[in-house]
Amino acid sequence: MAAPGENLRINGDRLWDSLMEMAQIGPGVAGGNNRQTLTDEDGEGRALFQKWCEAAGCSMGVDTMGNMFARREGTDPDALPVYVGSHLDTQPTGGKYDGVLGVLGGLEIVRTLNDLGIRTKHPIVVTNWTNEEGTRYAPAMLASGVFAGVHTEDWAKDRVDAEGKRFGDELKRIGWQGDEPVGSRKMHAMFELHIEQGPILEAKEKDIGVVTHGQGLSWTQVTITGKDAHTGSTPMPMRRNAGLGMARVLEAVDDIAWSHAPHAVGAAGHIDVYPNSRNVIPGQVVFTVDFRSPDLSVIEDMEKRLRVEGQKIADRMHLEIAFEKVGGFDPVTFDEGCVTAVRSAAERLGYSHMDLISGAGHDACWINQVAPTAMVMCPCVDGLSHNEAEEISKDWATAGTDVLMHSVVETAGIVE
Amino acid sequence: MAAPGENLRINGDRLWDSLMEMAQIGPGVAGGNNRQTLTDEDGEGRALFQKWCEAAGCSMGVDTMGNMFARREGTDPDALPVYVGSHLDTQPTGGKYDGVLGVLGGLEIVRTLNDLGIRTKHPIVVTNWTNEEGTRYAPAMLASGVFAGVHTEDWAKDRVDAEGKRFGDELKRIGWQGDEPVGSRKMHAMFELHIEQGPILEAKEKDIGVVTHGQGLSWTQVTITGKDAHTGSTPMPMRRNAGLGMARVLEAVDDIAWSHAPHAVGAAGHIDVYPNSRNVIPGQVVFTVDFRSPDLSVIEDMEKRLRVEGQKIADRMHLEIAFEKVGGFDPVTFDEGCVTAVRSAAERLGYSHMDLISGAGHDACWINQVAPTAMVMCPCVDGLSHNEAEEISKDWATAGTDVLMHSVVETAGIVE
Repeated sequence: MAAPGENLRINGDRLWDSLMEMAQIGPGVAGGNNRQTLTDEDGEGRALFQKWCEAAGCSMGVDTMGNMFARREGTDPDALPVYVGSHLDTQPTGGKYDGVLGVLGGLEIVRTLNDLGIRTKHPIVVTNWTNEEGTRYAPAMLASGVFAGVHTEDWAKDRVDAEGKRFGDELKRIGWQGDEPVGSRKMHAMFELHIEQGPILEAKEKDIGVVTHGQGLSWTQVTITGKDAHTGSTPMPMRRNAGLGMARVLEAVDDIAWSHAPHAVGAAGHIDVYPNSRNVIPGQVVFTVDFRSPDLSVIEDMEKRLRVEGQKIADRMHLEIAFEKVGGFDPVTFDEGCVTAVRSAAERLGYSHMDLISGAGHDACWINQVAPTAMVMCPCVDGLSHNEAEEISKDWATAGTDVLMHSVVETAGIVE
Repeated sequence: MAAPGENLRINGDRLWDSLMEMAQIGPGVAGGNNRQTLTDEDGEGRALFQKWCEAAGCSMGVDTMGNMFARREGTDPDALPVYVGSHLDTQPTGGKYDGVLGVLGGLEIVRTLNDLGIRTKHPIVVTNWTNEEGTRYAPAMLASGVFAGVHTEDWAKDRVDAEGKRFGDELKRIGWQGDEPVGSRKMHAMFELHIEQGPILEAKEKDIGVVTHGQGLSWTQVTITGKDAHTGSTPMPMRRNAGLGMARVLEAVDDIAWSHAPHAVGAAGHIDVYPNSRNVIPGQVVFTVDFRSPDLSVIEDMEKRLRVEGQKIADRMHLEIAFEKVGGFDPVTFDEGCVTAVRSAAERLGYSHMDLISGAGHDACWINQVAPTAMVMCPCVDGLSHNEAEEISKDWATAGTDVLMHSVVETAGIVE
């Protein structure tokens, strides 16, 4: 199996045109997209993707979770396919690239190989995973999770949206429940290209992030209870100010995360203050601490220290404090061979690159449990994502897809 | 003018029965009251108060802001009246005593003087001030404010409630807009009895608070702006976490208030975090800092230090910070003669007492600008107020009203 040559490049203009055409479906209100999972718009996006795949000579398989698999045959009938893909669904006020780049980047690989008449030993399967975003149906990465055996299919199909509509019913309604048993496919490897959704690559002026790990996550909901009291008539020594307690715990969260520099992070994004009135000392504050690290022992240490430090703060201030773990997943270590394929591809193509830890969850994080997997990342402007203003350059998209192609093709094996 | 003897006492059972009867009007959902200003229930409460006052031989005057003045004649036709009163309106989930005790305590004084055939040189006028609470029509102490010239009547009448109903229209609708020009009355003095709405008297086991000052207030709305970013994919050194900035400013607020112990207080009761999502670092936090002190120079110092310290915190964290003064009033120093009358009354009657600074605003704070004024406070259980569970004991109500009567009668002058 020879490595593809440095001259093998995708067609960046065609990729960009397809991204822009897909973005016409489920347009947002501010230049981005609202193409949430299992809506009519999701169905339209899927149909367009299918049309493109069939035009590129692929055969389409769909499983019972609606995951789409567009197959370009290989030369060895016994070789397991190399999968490449991401998701076409978006946030309600999402961007044009989050997920979509990874799917249409996979399609662009097939188109490029077709243009050049390149055959691979292993088949290549371009995949669209259903409901990665998790906004309409929590949790995120739902269908790749079922594929990997993390969730049962029955449980997933019973998820309901805010209007009470079942996932399973909506999947049927839009006509994208396939016949293929979910998770029955075996993979030689899987690659996912995704925009970074963070600021590192842009700040470091790197074209390519070689994703070595996915950060593990721990969400702890903290409830601090004091006593709501009049801000005027309650002397300082008699206050039990849950708001001030929250402030001190936030400071502790920051200290704890920094103590595990450089990879650990910690913050509270969601904070509710009760009764939230200008002249009432907060009697209760409920907030969620988000800790992440690529190292499980670090996550466990941060969780433990939050409880110890939080309890000390509460005790000193005569407050009550309660902790509840409300979410989490373990860190992911991507496959060494696949990661090396990505790093070598970037090197070979002359793109600047750096190793990266994915801070967000991705379909690849679940698929890594059942197949050798790695991810390629490209920069996004200002680290902005889950926002209609999400932006990337055509050059970044092209570089990322070039690296994706070289990784996939090297793994699938060019037939000379 | 002789001081009234130690044997002059109000009828605590009668006072308590009247409090309980008034509480039947506009009952709350949890044992308290919802008798908001200018509602039908406010009208019913006013009618009951008028009936009681007329039964006690008083004549009722009503001004164009709906303030009610029940007059018991004095012996000197040239002597200005001594006013005594508070308010009958309540919070939407208010207690049975906040305001009501001060009005019905005034009525109880008239009833007791009638029982004992005591005549005073100065008339005594029991007052119900319209819309002290300010919940339906902001600001609080609206009609006493117009009386004292703090607000214009036109402005006050143009206030609208959440349903868009004008104050002036609702006052007419319930039939309590009088003919008397507001603020035309001249006062010899004014006394207000009120529950403490704070925890000090109960904690110190004192029957009576002799209110020497009203705290001044300063509300500064603070807006901290960072950058909302993914909690997973944004490394610690690249974060501009407005939530953490808020935490540090709250700590500074606490330090600043403590530095002016024992009378200054400071806290933030109202805090809004944006976008308030578990996996997004807060891009903006808006909160209101409430500083209070009986000393204007201390309030000014606290305001200034908030701006200086807040700016330093923001600069260090690469955050933007903006300050807007959104409310405030100057500290009140009650009339020395009136305060002495209250203290002497408590002493003479053998009630335990202490000087107190009112942390909340009261009608007396505005009236103090146009007449010699003082306040009497009695304890409330656990400092709880603006809450249906607000509670006081019959003994506390009786002691407070005894002291109120002695203060009023000494100032009005018993005619031997």
